[in-house]
Amino acid sequence: MTSASSTSIETRSHSSELDQLAITTLRFLAADGVQAANSGHPGLPLGAAPLAWTLWAHHLRHDPANPHWPDRDRFVLSAGHGSILLYALLHTFGYDLPVDQLSRFRQLGSRTPGHPEYGQTTGVETTTGPLGQGLANAVGMALAERMLAARCNTGKHAIVDHRTWVLAGDGDLMEGISHEAASLAGRLQLDKLTVIFDDNDVTIDGPASQSCADDAEARFRSYGWHVLTVEDGNDLTALDETFTAARDSDRPTFISVKTTIGYGAPGVEGTSKAHGSPLGADTLAAMRTRLDWPDLPFYVPDAVSAAAATTAAKGAEAHADWVNRHELWQAEHAALSAAFPLDATPELVDERVLATLADEVKPGGRVATRKASGTALNALAAVYPGLVGGSADLAASTNTAIPGGFVSANDYVGRTIHFGIREHAMAAVMNGIALHGGLRPFGSTFLVFADYLRPALRLSALMKLGVIYVFTHDSVYVGEDGPTHQPIEQLESLRLIPGLTVLRPADAAETAIAWQIAALNTARPTALVLSRQDLPVLGGSDMDDVRKHGARIVRLAGERTDVVLAASGSEVSIALDAADILANRGIRAAVASVMCREKLDGALADGTYALPDAPTVWIEAGVPIGWRALARSRDAVIGLQRFGESGPGAEVAAHLGLTPSAVAETAMRLRA
Amino acid sequence: MTSASSTSIETRSHSSELDQLAITTLRFLAADGVQAANSGHPGLPLGAAPLAWTLWAHHLRHDPANPHWPDRDRFVLSAGHGSILLYALLHTFGYDLPVDQLSRFRQLGSRTPGHPEYGQTTGVETTTGPLGQGLANAVGMALAERMLAARCNTGKHAIVDHRTWVLAGDGDLMEGISHEAASLAGRLQLDKLTVIFDDNDVTIDGPASQSCADDAEARFRSYGWHVLTVEDGNDLTALDETFTAARDSDRPTFISVKTTIGYGAPGVEGTSKAHGSPLGADTLAAMRTRLDWPDLPFYVPDAVSAAAATTAAKGAEAHADWVNRHELWQAEHAALSAAFPLDATPELVDERVLATLADEVKPGGRVATRKASGTALNALAAVYPGLVGGSADLAASTNTAIPGGFVSANDYVGRTIHFGIREHAMAAVMNGIALHGGLRPFGSTFLVFADYLRPALRLSALMKLGVIYVFTHDSVYVGEDGPTHQPIEQLESLRLIPGLTVLRPADAAETAIAWQIAALNTARPTALVLSRQDLPVLGGSDMDDVRKHGARIVRLAGERTDVVLAASGSEVSIALDAADILANRGIRAAVASVMCREKLDGALADGTYALPDAPTVWIEAGVPIGWRALARSRDAVIGLQRFGESGPGAEVAAHLGLTPSAVAETAMRLRA
Repeated sequence: MTSASSTSIETRSHSSELDQLAITTLRFLAADGVQAANSGHPGLPLGAAPLAWTLWAHHLRHDPANPHWPDRDRFVLSAGHGSILLYALLHTFGYDLPVDQLSRFRQLGSRTPGHPEYGQTTGVETTTGPLGQGLANAVGMALAERMLAARCNTGKHAIVDHRTWVLAGDGDLMEGISHEAASLAGRLQLDKLTVIFDDNDVTIDGPASQSCADDAEARFRSYGWHVLTVEDGNDLTALDETFTAARDSDRPTFISVKTTIGYGAPGVEGTSKAHGSPLGADTLAAMRTRLDWPDLPFYVPDAVSAAAATTAAKGAEAHADWVNRHELWQAEHAALSAAFPLDATPELVDERVLATLADEVKPGGRVATRKASGTALNALAAVYPGLVGGSADLAASTNTAIPGGFVSANDYVGRTIHFGIREHAMAAVMNGIALHGGLRPFGSTFLVFADYLRPALRLSALMKLGVIYVFTHDSVYVGEDGPTHQPIEQLESLRLIPGLTVLRPADAAETAIAWQIAALNTARPTALVLSRQDLPVLGGSDMDDVRKHGARIVRLAGERTDVVLAASGSEVSIALDAADILANRGIRAAVASVMCREKLDGALADGTYALPDAPTVWIEAGVPIGWRALARSRDAVIGLQRFGESGPGAEVAAHLGLTPSAVAETAMRLRA
Repeated sequence: MTSASSTSIETRSHSSELDQLAITTLRFLAADGVQAANSGHPGLPLGAAPLAWTLWAHHLRHDPANPHWPDRDRFVLSAGHGSILLYALLHTFGYDLPVDQLSRFRQLGSRTPGHPEYGQTTGVETTTGPLGQGLANAVGMALAERMLAARCNTGKHAIVDHRTWVLAGDGDLMEGISHEAASLAGRLQLDKLTVIFDDNDVTIDGPASQSCADDAEARFRSYGWHVLTVEDGNDLTALDETFTAARDSDRPTFISVKTTIGYGAPGVEGTSKAHGSPLGADTLAAMRTRLDWPDLPFYVPDAVSAAAATTAAKGAEAHADWVNRHELWQAEHAALSAAFPLDATPELVDERVLATLADEVKPGGRVATRKASGTALNALAAVYPGLVGGSADLAASTNTAIPGGFVSANDYVGRTIHFGIREHAMAAVMNGIALHGGLRPFGSTFLVFADYLRPALRLSALMKLGVIYVFTHDSVYVGEDGPTHQPIEQLESLRLIPGLTVLRPADAAETAIAWQIAALNTARPTALVLSRQDLPVLGGSDMDDVRKHGARIVRLAGERTDVVLAASGSEVSIALDAADILANRGIRAAVASVMCREKLDGALADGTYALPDAPTVWIEAGVPIGWRALARSRDAVIGLQRFGESGPGAEVAAHLGLTPSAVAETAMRLRA
């Protein structure tokens, strides 16, 4: 078999000819997959096949037979729409992805979904598609690698020593998250991170120059990255040499590779037509003719399979070396190795943690739940060494600094990360840390800025990652900072995300429970929603109800319950004051704290839990619609359907009708 | 009065001494305001006062007595936490902000809220505080200026010719949106935009270098900006010369000004302690001693008032010149000027538009609402010349290109904007265009990526801007692209934002109505939520109900209604098919299309509208909780409480239980 590019290849070695054959194989696997699905994106795979093959065959350290080897190199296809390229690579290199999966590309129930989905396909390191996320995940993976290396490696044994490779497109680089993530990676000098930019000059709407005139190389240099260029994305020697140079870098490396979108497809190559539509039978046939390829869909020449197997064998050898090294390390550093894995399921998070907190949560005092959270987090951190994280430049406000020092460039032994004023990257980096494994990430900002990181938080939920979000300053009680800083719709909007556990504790004791739930919630993300202002400590009864059913009664009505006041977080204390007012009027009110509405909702629906049977006022300092879903016709809901105001928090709340007397009035009306 | 810095000032002119006096005045106005509030951010105002005074007194073209002069320069305090500096400037230059407002800084009901709030304070051009937004708004303002100049100015008369100045901090530049916005401004070569970077090396958590090592100047150079530096932020001559240079630039200009946070405040200057807390009485007193300032809160020396008045007089003169020029322009270009203002309330959007659409919306056909939207938008654009906008690199998918050509660098006469793969900046730029006035912006992307622009969309709502968002590919019917591209929680999450009108039309006819509502909705943002897939055209009866009450009956049950099927958007056609199934079983179902749930909710609550009185199944391909709020105990809700799957859209929907037969089954159960 000869290729259309054979004139240039003849001057090279047999190995180069084989590489070229493999590249053509990848191109047709991709084009055939898209054609079979009659849906998908052939443009990137056709253009980027040479760099992808060169990387996977000659630089990426991986063992296809052991895809979960902890010390493997990570490959992230940030330009997730090029998924068929990743599937073609996995198939060719012998991962568990047989040809019938390629032919079922984008079909329901296949392991080849339209965009790479973590957990659905062996070898897919993260879910990508929403642009920029993969690049930021990779920063998290590269950071996790450095942080684990600082914890594990000894002078004698380097058991954590791998690279993270990213393939990114124009869209990844245009998205703002790429700025945040690349800037953070530059600050932290993550030398084992390489971003390969598939610089094909074309976006969906046409030439990339229509919307973007960035000098991407200068931009990454401004972040402190090592920047390299490959002028011709089909020049295998240049690709090989450049990847080698990246491996030697002492900084994160950005490689701009000039490619041709849809390379090889007559009539569409180099244009936006190649981006997101199947080539069509005619163009695909013409491409077969042009590249001299047999009319066999999903054809992989034996020589290519053999070449891939050689790479796999080298990977298996490296893996075996590592296993030996790891065993020696375990034997020689018994005390150290006993601590691993650092992110093991924390049976550690037991009553000892709560005991540590007991002094802080004595009923009668007043403490903001964000402060109680800081105490709980610190107690937890003491027994949970894998817990690492930080804040988006609000550490003192969100109370999320933990002992162990800060992570800094070239010193990764610390536990607290200065994420910078970069909420979106913070969340995506946390996803990357969780995906890497070995560490358990948390991150914090003000609740209102959850909006800034929402796309990455959605991916935490979609990928079922045990990321912990700490959101403080959770209502109009923020006060003077005004409506831009006062959440109204954020809390409810978090509850809408499938699979996200949202906890809004009412006091210090519940905050400790909330952290315990979060720590144990390893297979889905958790959002802790915490007050800026001090709240009365209510004490710790009925905590089992909170754990199991998401709610507890914090005040009983007595022999008969006339009305129930059910609130979350800081509004529980308003409800308690309202209950006092009602008591003076002879109305017996029970007060419930709803820490996890989702759980309460489920428990009420399946009958495993019930609030006292009486008209209920549901109260939360946010949009009421979700509470209306729980309310029966005899109930009432008090919430906020407008933006806040700047002023002292209690004054703002009163101005908006969030007062004990307003709650009491509403309760009285229900009774009438 | 002499200042502590008098030694350096003695070498300068009287004018410089006066400038210095004014700067000290601003510093104390700011420090006194924060102290009076016992809350706020003195750090930026103290450091940036020299650049702010130099800009406002000598470069910003403004007429404080006529703050709405269309051709004024815009000043945007992107670092909104420094609001007291802006209030001090407005007060000093004679805007309508008396001293009692400064002393009521951050108090409920004052015109000096914690962060600048558009509409609350004369002279505040945009709401800032969420970092990066102001910078991106400014890009929109500068773009609107160029687009209007291209439409209005003639060889003889330049009636649109003003600059946009931004003061930005570290946080603005770290946020991803700054990348998107600055890259777009560079691509469009917005030469009248200047961003002044208050480079004080300090963030909330400490030295900025902890989290960021960017070379900001090199970064902006990589975007094609003109980059200048002022090494000493107290050097008035350098500031003056640099601002002059910026005004001569043929590209957007980035000026890095090295400042000292908290300048003049003993013990805290140069540290993060100065950022976000009052100085305290002792430090403030020490600062008075150090800068030789009288112990009079909010003191403005007469000489400073006089200097500000001189600026104001020059501004008034420039304004008067402009009025003359504008009159001449109107007289000499009667035909041209008759078209203005381009964004006038569109009485134009009348039945003529709908008539244009009539052919496209004949019942019996099938058309995706995104395609019907393209038709409606084009019909509207023909009669509404102020309508401008585009998409985040999805023009062909969202059907949002309109005639009139594309906006490009140095040619701003086009109407369609290539926003690039920059959803967040797109929304903030639209806010800036709307704030500028004179044009009416729309922007589009896939619904799932509404998450990427949510912080800016919130500000559209908070500022009550008539921005139109076009969100297509609105459900799991997206199909093959899979869960990352299939909205589940997005539609409901948009409905949570106070003041955002959310419309999800069921067919082409409703889509035309939705565009009409959006066009007339000039004082709040609108989100149009549109299908990727074709939908049957239902025809145009009861459109008045849709306009007034948000819903209409698209199928009557007959003499008796056994059950109501109420759905939104594409699920209306599922409901219609379910009604057929039910009819075969002898059950008479009415079907309602709910285009605007918020409006229907209000109409049901106040009794101005009612659906037929029967058990109701509410159906939407998204999280159900909001519909549960409308459902009575006899009702049922069908929604999606999980992420989607990759596969053909109809197969995915069926897999998730969204089928006519499932709806019919549920309706049967309600009847049982």
